[in-house]
Amino acid sequence: MCELLGMNCNVPTDICFSFRGFTLRGGQTGHHTDGFGIAFFEDRGCRVFLDYQPSAGSPIAELIRNYPIKSTHVIAHIRKATVGGITLANCHPFQREMWGRNWIFAHNGNLENLPALRQRHYRPVGTTDSEQAFCLILETLRERHPEPPGSGDLVRTIVEVTRAIAGHGTFNYILSDGELMFAHCATHLHYIVRQAPFSHAHLVDEDLTVDFADLTTPEDRVAVIATRPLTDNETWTAMAPGELTVFKDGAPATFPTGDFE
Amino acid sequence: MCELLGMNCNVPTDICFSFRGFTLRGGQTGHHTDGFGIAFFEDRGCRVFLDYQPSAGSPIAELIRNYPIKSTHVIAHIRKATVGGITLANCHPFQREMWGRNWIFAHNGNLENLPALRQRHYRPVGTTDSEQAFCLILETLRERHPEPPGSGDLVRTIVEVTRAIAGHGTFNYILSDGELMFAHCATHLHYIVRQAPFSHAHLVDEDLTVDFADLTTPEDRVAVIATRPLTDNETWTAMAPGELTVFKDGAPATFPTGDFE
Repeated sequence: MCELLGMNCNVPTDICFSFRGFTLRGGQTGHHTDGFGIAFFEDRGCRVFLDYQPSAGSPIAELIRNYPIKSTHVIAHIRKATVGGITLANCHPFQREMWGRNWIFAHNGNLENLPALRQRHYRPVGTTDSEQAFCLILETLRERHPEPPGSGDLVRTIVEVTRAIAGHGTFNYILSDGELMFAHCATHLHYIVRQAPFSHAHLVDEDLTVDFADLTTPEDRVAVIATRPLTDNETWTAMAPGELTVFKDGAPATFPTGDFE
Repeated sequence: MCELLGMNCNVPTDICFSFRGFTLRGGQTGHHTDGFGIAFFEDRGCRVFLDYQPSAGSPIAELIRNYPIKSTHVIAHIRKATVGGITLANCHPFQREMWGRNWIFAHNGNLENLPALRQRHYRPVGTTDSEQAFCLILETLRERHPEPPGSGDLVRTIVEVTRAIAGHGTFNYILSDGELMFAHCATHLHYIVRQAPFSHAHLVDEDLTVDFADLTTPEDRVAVIATRPLTDNETWTAMAPGELTVFKDGAPATFPTGDFE
């Protein structure tokens, strides 16, 4: 299984601390050695770094651990290949343009017998169940909403398609268009919201502590989402199976995918 | 104006030497300081590195100058902003998925009064004339060919849409799907094909020489495309205005866009 990492904030923030602990799980403190990726939204732009090497040893991961790219929406993934070979095309996160915005998606879990794609707008490039699920989400959104809908309709459609896909296996994911960040828990997903008063955080995967009070202003709010908590001295919220949490400006709102109507 | 760099080869090759000279033009030997980008195809996968900082000083460009990523199709761009602000969303190369493949595009020139996009499949994320032209190419290809056509039909449609767009201004570009590489010359575009017997090459932008005989096998063939020649001791071919050259496995085939029918 893979691991997911997301960050959503009200002001552009770097993810160096969280990404440091997270990438050690790709070959050092964990066995997710089949590639990694990370996407940073910066206004409407987005940059995606991918490597099929283990994140603990990748020169690209090393760059990102040390280069404080500031972003309000970040999605990262370390891969333990199940469906699809160890290739760049199968590395998450996946990226597509919809309604003139970038959409980014990363998945943890296995999905079987997914419905066929109509392929009117999106086709997978690689061979993962994950990319097929992403294309199904986007295809459903575009067929339902030829023009970008309001956020209520957007969330409703995402809840609906998530519920349909989740019936095919394990479907933990993080999805974002740079405005909202969607996190769906099937089995394991945790989050924490850091806001004033900020204090120390200590990584699980390395003996490293930061004092966020030194790095933030009192108005900052940062939500971090991860398969397993990244720090051992803070209280992370465990999401319940079937919960979709939508983050905006670092604040979460949770919707059950079972009975949203 | 911007500058373009492309590489197409019959075996995966790194672009460190050419990229080194090229990126110095982004703030050191040239004034293209408004961002840069580079895309590497690796089988069906593709990774794109973007930065809105000048390439001569960007930590991401520094990584790529020193990290020998091997690829058969590379497209790079250094930007001098004309249309659209200095933002990540406006950095080339641009990326979209079509027919289950990645498509990558970079442009040098200015285009005015482009026809409106039908936006059935693709919309620009940023505000450049370049991304709009890219969307026009892809939209035309998909409307004409709902399924991927043979290479003859593909080239024919690209020639046709190129000719239509080229009527709106200066349209030097490099485009690839990881199988073919299309280079269109409006004003300035040069290429060189390196093959056995390999010899020394010396950069224009830095006093640096490599001996390709040390780095290659006799079967290797590498085409490098650039706005201005990158070396000063080799013979580059200047493309003629209105010429579209299609590279496959490092070998060029040229089509006039004026009278292809």
